[in-house]
Amino acid sequence: MFESASLKHHVDKAVYKREAAKLRQGLLDAQYALKEHGRFPVLILIAGVEGAGKSETVNLLNEWMDPRHIHTSAFFDPSDEERERPSLWRFWRALPPKGRIGIFFGAWHTMPILNRVMGEIGEGEFAREIGEIQRFEKMLSDEGVLLLKYWFHLSRGQQRKRIKELAGDPKTRWRVADRDLEYLKLYKKFVKVCDPFLRKTSTGECPWIVVPGADPRHRTLTVARHLLASMRERLDEKPLKRVPDRSPPMPAPSDRLNVLRALDLDQPMTRAEYEKELEKWQGRLNVASRDPRLAKTAVVAVFEGNDAAGKGGAIRRVTSALDARCYANVSIAAPSEDERAQPYLWRFWRHLPRNGRFTFFDRSWYGRVLVERVEGFCSEADWQRAYTEINDFEGAMLRHGTVVVKFWLSVSKEEQFRRFKAREKVSFKRFKITAEDWRNRKKWDAYETAVCDMVDRTSTSLAPWTLVEANNKYHARIKVLKTLCRALEDRLDNVRKAGAGKRGRKK
Amino acid sequence: MFESASLKHHVDKAVYKREAAKLRQGLLDAQYALKEHGRFPVLILIAGVEGAGKSETVNLLNEWMDPRHIHTSAFFDPSDEERERPSLWRFWRALPPKGRIGIFFGAWHTMPILNRVMGEIGEGEFAREIGEIQRFEKMLSDEGVLLLKYWFHLSRGQQRKRIKELAGDPKTRWRVADRDLEYLKLYKKFVKVCDPFLRKTSTGECPWIVVPGADPRHRTLTVARHLLASMRERLDEKPLKRVPDRSPPMPAPSDRLNVLRALDLDQPMTRAEYEKELEKWQGRLNVASRDPRLAKTAVVAVFEGNDAAGKGGAIRRVTSALDARCYANVSIAAPSEDERAQPYLWRFWRHLPRNGRFTFFDRSWYGRVLVERVEGFCSEADWQRAYTEINDFEGAMLRHGTVVVKFWLSVSKEEQFRRFKAREKVSFKRFKITAEDWRNRKKWDAYETAVCDMVDRTSTSLAPWTLVEANNKYHARIKVLKTLCRALEDRLDNVRKAGAGKRGRKK
Repeated sequence: MFESASLKHHVDKAVYKREAAKLRQGLLDAQYALKEHGRFPVLILIAGVEGAGKSETVNLLNEWMDPRHIHTSAFFDPSDEERERPSLWRFWRALPPKGRIGIFFGAWHTMPILNRVMGEIGEGEFAREIGEIQRFEKMLSDEGVLLLKYWFHLSRGQQRKRIKELAGDPKTRWRVADRDLEYLKLYKKFVKVCDPFLRKTSTGECPWIVVPGADPRHRTLTVARHLLASMRERLDEKPLKRVPDRSPPMPAPSDRLNVLRALDLDQPMTRAEYEKELEKWQGRLNVASRDPRLAKTAVVAVFEGNDAAGKGGAIRRVTSALDARCYANVSIAAPSEDERAQPYLWRFWRHLPRNGRFTFFDRSWYGRVLVERVEGFCSEADWQRAYTEINDFEGAMLRHGTVVVKFWLSVSKEEQFRRFKAREKVSFKRFKITAEDWRNRKKWDAYETAVCDMVDRTSTSLAPWTLVEANNKYHARIKVLKTLCRALEDRLDNVRKAGAGKRGRKK
Repeated sequence: MFESASLKHHVDKAVYKREAAKLRQGLLDAQYALKEHGRFPVLILIAGVEGAGKSETVNLLNEWMDPRHIHTSAFFDPSDEERERPSLWRFWRALPPKGRIGIFFGAWHTMPILNRVMGEIGEGEFAREIGEIQRFEKMLSDEGVLLLKYWFHLSRGQQRKRIKELAGDPKTRWRVADRDLEYLKLYKKFVKVCDPFLRKTSTGECPWIVVPGADPRHRTLTVARHLLASMRERLDEKPLKRVPDRSPPMPAPSDRLNVLRALDLDQPMTRAEYEKELEKWQGRLNVASRDPRLAKTAVVAVFEGNDAAGKGGAIRRVTSALDARCYANVSIAAPSEDERAQPYLWRFWRHLPRNGRFTFFDRSWYGRVLVERVEGFCSEADWQRAYTEINDFEGAMLRHGTVVVKFWLSVSKEEQFRRFKAREKVSFKRFKITAEDWRNRKKWDAYETAVCDMVDRTSTSLAPWTLVEANNKYHARIKVLKTLCRALEDRLDNVRKAGAGKRGRKK
């Protein structure tokens, strides 16, 4: 990857001056065109070796364009807030919205590369990280992000020279950290890790652009020209009327049986039994939630289900067992303007809890493969790719150590009808039943198919779907409480075992 | 992935009969439409647990459709021919051309899954294989292949029952191998490996379709319906006039320096020096090529270069040092009809040598990122994705143990002019110079950019580009011979070391 960039590139002052003036105007024009009618965000990753002019380039882009519409994020050591969430969270929260430019100084590639160079992770873990990054960047590209990845390169000799110059000058000495000198020693290893990394994470849509870093004028022109050409290409592109669909159709059911119909929705439970069980499980949940070992674990619970299946009621029975300071309820309806300006999953990432906290989602990211699929709010290609994206999203939570529990509350068509009618009769419940509910009901079968596909494609061993028979609300609420409680208790057991294991190893 | 498929699905005989007749007609119609004007091939992967009706389904598809236009390939133990080439070779050679249907009974997923279940490979190697498969299937899809992946599933109870039934009946006993009984014991482990595998290799474009295997009628309808719907969707799709381009432009050079201009093309060598060197290096090459340790290694050498740079002459100096039975010359020009009906890389895969053989490519798969890019013979998206595809192609050779050597023979624009003129004067060389050569010359700068991008993006540590200064033919030929010879000698050294290591371990 570094053949061209290792040459002694050079641009004359006169050439630079002439060219720079034009590029500057062009970039400013492009930035305003993007802001006016750009239907996409621009995300610029700045990466590469130390001393290759990364910060100079970032400063320059901010100088040449209107810095009010550029958001630059530098990712050094993560904050507490960030450390207590999945590692991608800090990048999601910094994503630029449509019409804006975001510059990421370091990004999701930084830690895997460093960890591999330092020998903290093996080839296997590195291969897994590369796979995650491939899929993450494909998702950004599929969501319309113009992702431009610049890798600033210096040959070993150039890097040594540059760092010595900085260190020798009192005015710039502060910029040379001990770490930089250490990296210089690791140069060969670094290149050996980065070269295949850049290759594997370079795709047609998101290639790495290697920028020779030694000559400032050459470096600036390279980035500015490419950035301008890329923005112009996308700005001038006529939007396609029809999104090309490469996805084969989902299989049609071949008999009447499916995971929902296989349920016996009418589970017996009397009020008396319910009250006894409720007390028992709320008590156990409360004890588990206050266990100090849970302080290092976040809990995410997803509630999906038919309209009027009792999602809200079930959530209330859970939260009433918890300290109000430790949980948040997130109710998902139509996305806000801010949310529409971001990739689909952004509005869920933003609500992920810190360690020690619970978040209950009343409807969730599964909307993409349920309501959006059935109602045609997104293209078929969009909801089909969403299964992989959702698995990766939850995979990121699980790797962070988050407990993920997912409920589908299922009522029969007849029971739903009874509840709709009942709601219409009780004045204070009337707000809960709308024309839309009746409309959705007409698409019962399409929703059923969507739910079954969702269960098949997103029920993983660590984040399985729990299907809850909900014709009897008592049964449904107890099953939810029990499942959640046991998931927490399992985690506590594992923490204890892992702790014991660690202590064991220390001997 | 297996929630729905583990249920006790069932289709009535009457329903089946009615439906099957319709599907049969529909599939036959679709097959003929594909044959008449289908611009794509259909590739059906049949995978999953033993005893779930895979062969029954394959037989049935052949019965329902016209079997003359279906090619079924079963991949059991690889042949000698196959074992002596990269593992993907057997799949490439069996790919269906445009307009045809291919059925693969087992495919590239089989060995990674088995090896993981049996503990022959670790999680890391498995993650790497998954990454390869993701990129390989994306390439097939990008090349227009309709890839349909069916995974036949049985629950553990269903599998046990089925195998016992087969084993109990003398007529079917032969179909139960000892291996099947062994797999039954491994069921849980198998599912634990397959579930995440199916998830990670399911994308919007190439999802796995899980087929419940227990009920033959249900199973048949599931596959037949999905196959028909998928073929119809693609057949009825109006081709897009404009291929959407998500690739940002390649960076423009910012000064006049590049890896070609950095060469000093006029390297000195007299005829006398040349003849001495020629004898020396041809002798060494001959000795290396006859070394018995090379019997387990294939050698692939790629010759690219400017028109009239002396590729043919260099190849002849190499081959005249070799036993004519051990090498093949492949000269790449416009693709044949057969080759145009296949994914781009097919025509190169078909020429890969067996172990112990050499293949010399006079022009190669790099045509995609050279002539096809410059002349606009393929879309920008196509040549941009080709860098990754080529890296994966050569990566497959390297992992197989093939020695890969790549030469770019570089002459100056002036030297090329001199040679063109000289060729025009010598009657027996006149065939070597055409109007096209003069036309290409006008695009000198565009070719130069393409060559530099190619070197940057495909020069890897194990398969680097050797840039050959070729204004002096003597120098060029010797550099080629020397480089190839040293690559072989390095390999022999490594074989010796590895051999010593192995013997060492045996103690």
